[in-house]
Amino acid sequence: MPQTNVSELQIQRRKYQPVLPEVLQAGAAAVKAKEGKLTHSIADREKVKEIFPNTYGLPEVTFVKGANAKIKNKAVRVGVVLSGGQAPGGHNVIAGLFDGLKKANKKNVLIGFLGGPSGILENKYKVISEKVLDDYRNTGGFDFIQSGRTKIETDQQFCSTKDNCTSQKLDALVVVGGDDSNTNAALIAEYSKKENMGMCVVGVPKTIDGDLKNKNIETSFGFDTATKIYAELVGNICRDVNSAQKYWHFVRLMGRSASHITLEVGFKTQPNIVLVGEEILAKNLTLAKVVDNIVSVIKKRAADGKNFGVALVPEGLIEFIPEMKKLISALNDTLAEHASAIAGFDSIEEKKEYVFNKLPANLSALMQSLPAGIASQLMLDRDPHGNVQVSLIETEKLLIEMVQKKLVELKKEGSYKGKFSAITHFFGYEGRCGIPSNFDANYCYALGYNAAVLALNNFTGYLSSVRNLTQAPKKWICGGIPLTMMMNIEKRHGKDKPVIQKALVDLKGKPFKEFAKKRDTWAVTESYIFPGPIQYFGPTEVTDLTTKTLQYEQTKK
Amino acid sequence: MPQTNVSELQIQRRKYQPVLPEVLQAGAAAVKAKEGKLTHSIADREKVKEIFPNTYGLPEVTFVKGANAKIKNKAVRVGVVLSGGQAPGGHNVIAGLFDGLKKANKKNVLIGFLGGPSGILENKYKVISEKVLDDYRNTGGFDFIQSGRTKIETDQQFCSTKDNCTSQKLDALVVVGGDDSNTNAALIAEYSKKENMGMCVVGVPKTIDGDLKNKNIETSFGFDTATKIYAELVGNICRDVNSAQKYWHFVRLMGRSASHITLEVGFKTQPNIVLVGEEILAKNLTLAKVVDNIVSVIKKRAADGKNFGVALVPEGLIEFIPEMKKLISALNDTLAEHASAIAGFDSIEEKKEYVFNKLPANLSALMQSLPAGIASQLMLDRDPHGNVQVSLIETEKLLIEMVQKKLVELKKEGSYKGKFSAITHFFGYEGRCGIPSNFDANYCYALGYNAAVLALNNFTGYLSSVRNLTQAPKKWICGGIPLTMMMNIEKRHGKDKPVIQKALVDLKGKPFKEFAKKRDTWAVTESYIFPGPIQYFGPTEVTDLTTKTLQYEQTKK
Repeated sequence: MPQTNVSELQIQRRKYQPVLPEVLQAGAAAVKAKEGKLTHSIADREKVKEIFPNTYGLPEVTFVKGANAKIKNKAVRVGVVLSGGQAPGGHNVIAGLFDGLKKANKKNVLIGFLGGPSGILENKYKVISEKVLDDYRNTGGFDFIQSGRTKIETDQQFCSTKDNCTSQKLDALVVVGGDDSNTNAALIAEYSKKENMGMCVVGVPKTIDGDLKNKNIETSFGFDTATKIYAELVGNICRDVNSAQKYWHFVRLMGRSASHITLEVGFKTQPNIVLVGEEILAKNLTLAKVVDNIVSVIKKRAADGKNFGVALVPEGLIEFIPEMKKLISALNDTLAEHASAIAGFDSIEEKKEYVFNKLPANLSALMQSLPAGIASQLMLDRDPHGNVQVSLIETEKLLIEMVQKKLVELKKEGSYKGKFSAITHFFGYEGRCGIPSNFDANYCYALGYNAAVLALNNFTGYLSSVRNLTQAPKKWICGGIPLTMMMNIEKRHGKDKPVIQKALVDLKGKPFKEFAKKRDTWAVTESYIFPGPIQYFGPTEVTDLTTKTLQYEQTKK
Repeated sequence: MPQTNVSELQIQRRKYQPVLPEVLQAGAAAVKAKEGKLTHSIADREKVKEIFPNTYGLPEVTFVKGANAKIKNKAVRVGVVLSGGQAPGGHNVIAGLFDGLKKANKKNVLIGFLGGPSGILENKYKVISEKVLDDYRNTGGFDFIQSGRTKIETDQQFCSTKDNCTSQKLDALVVVGGDDSNTNAALIAEYSKKENMGMCVVGVPKTIDGDLKNKNIETSFGFDTATKIYAELVGNICRDVNSAQKYWHFVRLMGRSASHITLEVGFKTQPNIVLVGEEILAKNLTLAKVVDNIVSVIKKRAADGKNFGVALVPEGLIEFIPEMKKLISALNDTLAEHASAIAGFDSIEEKKEYVFNKLPANLSALMQSLPAGIASQLMLDRDPHGNVQVSLIETEKLLIEMVQKKLVELKKEGSYKGKFSAITHFFGYEGRCGIPSNFDANYCYALGYNAAVLALNNFTGYLSSVRNLTQAPKKWICGGIPLTMMMNIEKRHGKDKPVIQKALVDLKGKPFKEFAKKRDTWAVTESYIFPGPIQYFGPTEVTDLTTKTLQYEQTKK
């Protein structure tokens, strides 16, 4: 259905032509693949190899210019599926893929599976046409073909995948997703090989969280745009704080497994406090100690007459605090084990009382030290698997309540004379479907186009890789990275599973070190930066720069 | 202190030169004032006249081109103060004022009182220099001279104002603020006249809420930028909702006294539900009925298989629901009257029990129908005047909990078969300090420049008025509107007070009518618009259009 309600910016953005890396500009028929050495998984080689007998250890692939005759031999049919949470630029992956296929052969066909992997299982799809696609070029969201979180895991599901992909006569399947979805892509690639389906599988690295990266994948798409959107808002809040000079704002930012978003937004706005989960884990800090660290900054500022500031908190904070992680895990178990007894109590107070008594003494004490509202949230919100829904835990409120309590104590002692009023924010959904920045528009288009070239060359079990990202798009390096190369074995629900390792904030990496150098200054000053909204037109310094994280990572020396 | 940490966008925005209305372009010496007929207050003429014997009923003033010899006679000293909450563009008011004064005479001096009206009372100020001001041109926030909420009310305060303005040898004072602050400006203008201070007072209409407007003030500054920022976020959420197709998002938007922001963001994004407080008040809807109306949309969409949507809720909603307003007022009284008894109870449950028994039966029943968390919020959060802090009441959560309860009932009856998962947002502070849109950058600069011309012509008790705002800035009409013309008498804390009447959403006005025509379609379709972030460069359709509210209001026919 063509879009009828379109904003002025969308109309203008449709005209934007993403810049392709030079190597891809003449199309797949002018691209040759250079294969590197055979590769290994990052760990657990034997086990990973056992699971991927047909696709383990493939060579890295780099594309170079050169005639490639086989590309035009026959028309191909390719399927694409968006998997997991939205990230800005997904539509441009589809656009790049489409254009790459059509440039090679007008008869090539792209179909989009609808609603995520369940679209494959139920054979729900649409054939992608130039006309309709044009409405979605350079737009945010995944609404063109929607997304979903179904995993293809059971034998039954693999069978349906085979049936439907075969009936669709697919030569290739492109899976756009995060670490989990790309692990799934690797398993489908292996299965396709084993079953002689003649279908190659290519992944595309997507996640706003920025935790799908390694030495060959410099960043996942969406991270640039999402962090720019959050930074616009946090910058506005910093300016507000510095204008009113009477509030502390605590901002929780999406990113459960890693703190990349929080760190990047920190670089872009330079607020007074930035909590990095990975550091808290590495230092084995208690919740009380995390609170003490925050209080210490508040105290210092108050002593300067500054009863205001901004603190950034990663969504996954409480799972990074070792004792809290233990508590949550114990609660998950206790609630599951005693479900019927607990259901028998009417009031939350009685339920809590009951659960407190079932917990080990140290965790019971910790639970009782939490503000009542948060303790209730930890008790109540469970996902269908019986796990606490961390994104629903209002960590920023937890911190504020505990900070407040501590400040009252300090005031009694006479060591704190300030005022503390706090306001909370949580930014997540606001950034997942923004209109992609020029960087993400270009990067996604290149990732999609590059995926088309991989597919046309019949590379399977590869992740589309576009590198050298702090340079101009023309200079980007293109190729493919074997998915098995990024894997190790992890326990999931008690079973050994091959998974792509999540990239956490590296405490020895340049971004974190840079942050560590600066944060004490940020704490006591107002070094705030106000990045403002993403710009699509105008000076390139404003429109085209990518993340500070990438800039620091790629700085030589 | 010059800014050292500056974003790329800020560096570029410094270069932006706001477009002045043609009539002001040659400076105050080339502007003549045309005085209209004498005016009257909108109501309570006798009472208002009694309070403003020296400044009541002045004529409207319109500026036209023409030589004005007296402007250069002597150098003047002008003070400026920012009063109340931040709004994007405040710094450009100062820039326009500064440039207007300097263009007339290089020896003219502008001083900025620091931290709002208390800066006047404590004689805290800084002399504004070109060099430092340049860092703040076209920026958001009020951090250049800060703001505050002190009101100048007591005899003592008026005396200090006289002392400090006289010692500063001020010829004029420019007050940048909302309805309250401009009422205060009118009182200072009257006082200055009575005391022969020789200082004129000019107001500038500021508030993101958009509720300071009338036939001569088309809009207050900041409304354009703030609603664009909120619309960016709401549009992103609409796109997310339409991509994931599994959540309802309830978004509360700032604007306590009026629903202009919510309505404008509704126009810009076309979500499924937009609640307008003024309509709820006019129809005397109960809370239960408001919930029923929401449930009815959720049911209709669920029947189409759409278990997702977006609802906008104005911050002031609960005060617009007549029974809730009565409940809050009764709670304020009860809590004040029985403060010590209530303080005696340990638990919130006991406090509630006690208060329930003190309330009239109908309000007690209403209170008991509320979700426990919200009932507690209504009991706990009081401002220093003993009033509930409405902005802290999480109305969106209240609605969701009540909607959920209702849906469970309907499911039992069999009339609803959908799923309902809801996510909440509150946007307010995020928009108050954004980098002003081109519209607000131009409008604020013109308001400030125009205020300089009013001051140089010694007009006192006027609000800076720039009109014809849907036309290009060059064609804007400039002049002054007597502050007393907008006044009526209202009871405040039991006393008759002259106040500038707040402009609520007019249910007979074009914007609301336009909304009423469209909302049923928005409810059942996905007519979402994704406006994206504010653009400062590029095609003028993207950068320069102002609000839908103004466009509808100024459409002929």
